[in-house]
Amino acid sequence: MLTTEQWQMHEITLAGTQTGNPFTDVFLKAVFRHDVGYIETDGFYVGGGVYKIRFMPTVPGKWTYRTQSGDPALDGKTGEILCGPATGNNRGPVRVKGKYYFAHADGTRHISIGTTCYAWIYQTGDLIEKTFSELEKYGFNKIRMCVFPKHYDYNLKEPEHFPFIKDADGGFDFTRLDPVFFNKLDRIISRLSDSDIQADLILFHPYDRWGFASMPPDADDRYLRYMAARYSAYKNVWWSFANEYDLMTNMGGASNPCHKDIWDWERFAKIICAHDPYGHLRSIHNCGTFYDHTKPWVTHCSVQGAGTDNADKTRRTYGKPVVYDECEYEGNIQHNWGNISGQEMTKRFWLGAVYGGFVGHGETYLGHDGILWWSHGGKLHGESPERIRFMKKILEEVPEDIELYPQNDAYSIHYFDIHRPSFVNFSKPDGKYTADIIDTWNMTVDRLPETFTGDFTVKLPGREHMAIRLIKL
Amino acid sequence: MLTTEQWQMHEITLAGTQTGNPFTDVFLKAVFRHDVGYIETDGFYVGGGVYKIRFMPTVPGKWTYRTQSGDPALDGKTGEILCGPATGNNRGPVRVKGKYYFAHADGTRHISIGTTCYAWIYQTGDLIEKTFSELEKYGFNKIRMCVFPKHYDYNLKEPEHFPFIKDADGGFDFTRLDPVFFNKLDRIISRLSDSDIQADLILFHPYDRWGFASMPPDADDRYLRYMAARYSAYKNVWWSFANEYDLMTNMGGASNPCHKDIWDWERFAKIICAHDPYGHLRSIHNCGTFYDHTKPWVTHCSVQGAGTDNADKTRRTYGKPVVYDECEYEGNIQHNWGNISGQEMTKRFWLGAVYGGFVGHGETYLGHDGILWWSHGGKLHGESPERIRFMKKILEEVPEDIELYPQNDAYSIHYFDIHRPSFVNFSKPDGKYTADIIDTWNMTVDRLPETFTGDFTVKLPGREHMAIRLIKL
Repeated sequence: MLTTEQWQMHEITLAGTQTGNPFTDVFLKAVFRHDVGYIETDGFYVGGGVYKIRFMPTVPGKWTYRTQSGDPALDGKTGEILCGPATGNNRGPVRVKGKYYFAHADGTRHISIGTTCYAWIYQTGDLIEKTFSELEKYGFNKIRMCVFPKHYDYNLKEPEHFPFIKDADGGFDFTRLDPVFFNKLDRIISRLSDSDIQADLILFHPYDRWGFASMPPDADDRYLRYMAARYSAYKNVWWSFANEYDLMTNMGGASNPCHKDIWDWERFAKIICAHDPYGHLRSIHNCGTFYDHTKPWVTHCSVQGAGTDNADKTRRTYGKPVVYDECEYEGNIQHNWGNISGQEMTKRFWLGAVYGGFVGHGETYLGHDGILWWSHGGKLHGESPERIRFMKKILEEVPEDIELYPQNDAYSIHYFDIHRPSFVNFSKPDGKYTADIIDTWNMTVDRLPETFTGDFTVKLPGREHMAIRLIKL
Repeated sequence: MLTTEQWQMHEITLAGTQTGNPFTDVFLKAVFRHDVGYIETDGFYVGGGVYKIRFMPTVPGKWTYRTQSGDPALDGKTGEILCGPATGNNRGPVRVKGKYYFAHADGTRHISIGTTCYAWIYQTGDLIEKTFSELEKYGFNKIRMCVFPKHYDYNLKEPEHFPFIKDADGGFDFTRLDPVFFNKLDRIISRLSDSDIQADLILFHPYDRWGFASMPPDADDRYLRYMAARYSAYKNVWWSFANEYDLMTNMGGASNPCHKDIWDWERFAKIICAHDPYGHLRSIHNCGTFYDHTKPWVTHCSVQGAGTDNADKTRRTYGKPVVYDECEYEGNIQHNWGNISGQEMTKRFWLGAVYGGFVGHGETYLGHDGILWWSHGGKLHGESPERIRFMKKILEEVPEDIELYPQNDAYSIHYFDIHRPSFVNFSKPDGKYTADIIDTWNMTVDRLPETFTGDFTVKLPGREHMAIRLIKL
């Protein structure tokens, strides 16, 4: 009988000591072997004397394992895992494909269509349920989410549970992780995985009133090793080292020295690289100044910026895929990063796509009981999500071997954003073409009845947000 | 009895020879003297044995003059000009004011609100009349216009008259200017002057099928000296050395080597500087690459670019006023530079203004018998002109000693472009303020009934194109 399937997390549970502080005192790892190689991974403590080791089989077939630990109760445990092929929507983790694109481990293209709900794991069960259903409804396949709680405008409620347990003084004991919190996070990531949605886990961020942004270095490092041990085996995990790393420089003054330097980020990256045996995607997101995305550990550029038509310049600068994870949000709050229209958001998605990048969504509408998607999840109220879903469908129709940027002769999408040509001239000396008029706002595709060749003109209605798709027959 | 008024062109007519080629053979100049100094200017031939000398008195009072010429009939002529103070809308030529702004010679601020009709002087009288009335209707106070005819899409009709007369071979005799053409140009510039509209004369441009863009250097130079002699005395002349100088590099191939190098432009600038004794404004407009606007002869940056919110960066780069003379045009033609919406155009005007620059308008709508404002003038069909007029009114309300950029505490306009805040927080610890809600699209200004101080919130309707004006009481 099969134990699990390829790329599906398999968990081994072991009983050990609960004396002392198992989070800091107990060493546990396991080596998983297969004819083709081996994988070494750390175990982790979940509380109540229980330890776990999580494993993601990278190839089908028979795997055997053996544990190593300083605790005799955990050491030398062995077992066998029979791994079948992937089934259903399981296409394995996402990797960089070629230079500028993404694909799942099984080779199928991954068109990243992400959104952002920074603090959704801290919300009530109802809200989390609603968020799952909205993600699925609109076809978002990545969600940016913080591990730590968020302190910011519209985010002032005290969470029920935290990644760390409180100490006797009411502060946090950064040596003891809270099993209740992490069990919840497990369920969320697991369910995202089942829905084929990437969990872009933000490991640090500056919007903090509890001290998580300014822990001592040993606590930072232990937290990262724990995250790697606990979550690397989920096929859908992406590591985002920070939201707005460049704001984590002395914000909050001396009393809350949320300060991290480049050597901190580089050390964090080393830890994740060393303890995630599967090499999940890694990025670090900016506010104003881009990180040096040429660093070898950075797999793709996760950037903030309204000019998503700069995707081509950015990807050439760093030689890596570019995701505009924040291009401002559809909404109506006081901050300009959170009050663009649905048309503007949709336009930024299209511009990112036709210039060879990817764009992330977010929504900040007031007037819904203080529930703003960007942070809490919940219901989407904007006009862009269904247009983004429409765009995703159009992009999925592009043959896998075709890249939209730079434009090629066989299959091209000419997107006019706010420009309103009433006609467009083309010169296609070789071959015959079909032409589709795409209205990216009204979500229609009209195939023109004739075929075209040589010098020809395609008429447009003179509205904004139109595109022409030419396909060589 | 007064001869003329300050800054008003005064013309002296002299009879001389018409044998040979007076355009090349006859030297004529005059020195105009006043207690405060003197002005030396070239005369010019107008045909039929008639020569003229034009003079703009820079100060009121008594001016005397004496001519110099190799032709005894023109030499040693003297006279007296009694110049009164300026009257009506005559505020003198426009100069750079401070570092980044413009003012008339009488010190009054000039808020440049320009438009573009490249080839309007080549159109019929009816069309020219209509253009004048549209300029006045919408309050445009500058028009960009080519001296040479234009060959381009929608501009293929052969002009009736040209700056040069044709030779026996049907080509042009670049040594003989056509009086009919220049008389018409005189009337147009004079009438613009009467309407207080600046004539931004484009001296060269690349869109040519007649050879004017590729004349021999001596013809270029003679043409420039003629332009300086004939037009410097008009108070409303601005010199634009080129439209899209950077396209005048080998366009049209070897048979039409429309090629000018930096030394050509610099030589042209020297000629105009030497022969325009009044120092009218001088610029050189780009297509893609900005000219080096730090050159001392460049008085202001006349640039092309859609990103008018870069006005601040551009003006800091060159230390001069910035006019986005082309930020794309409202219209619906096939070229993306000519098919933006009225909202987009209006937005670009406002962004230019609040970032410390000036923006120019243009319009390219098909469907009006092939008459496109951008080139022919005629009637305006777009939605931006009345909004631009509204913006001009708002800018005229700003006290003369206030600059909108960088923002100051006494009087500020907070423009939100496509952003849609439903409220904005301010912190004004000192003084009391009135707040106006400006809808730049619907052209309304609503003064809020209360006054504000300290930390306060101003609500907005959550639409695009809104602004808040705060005025300290």
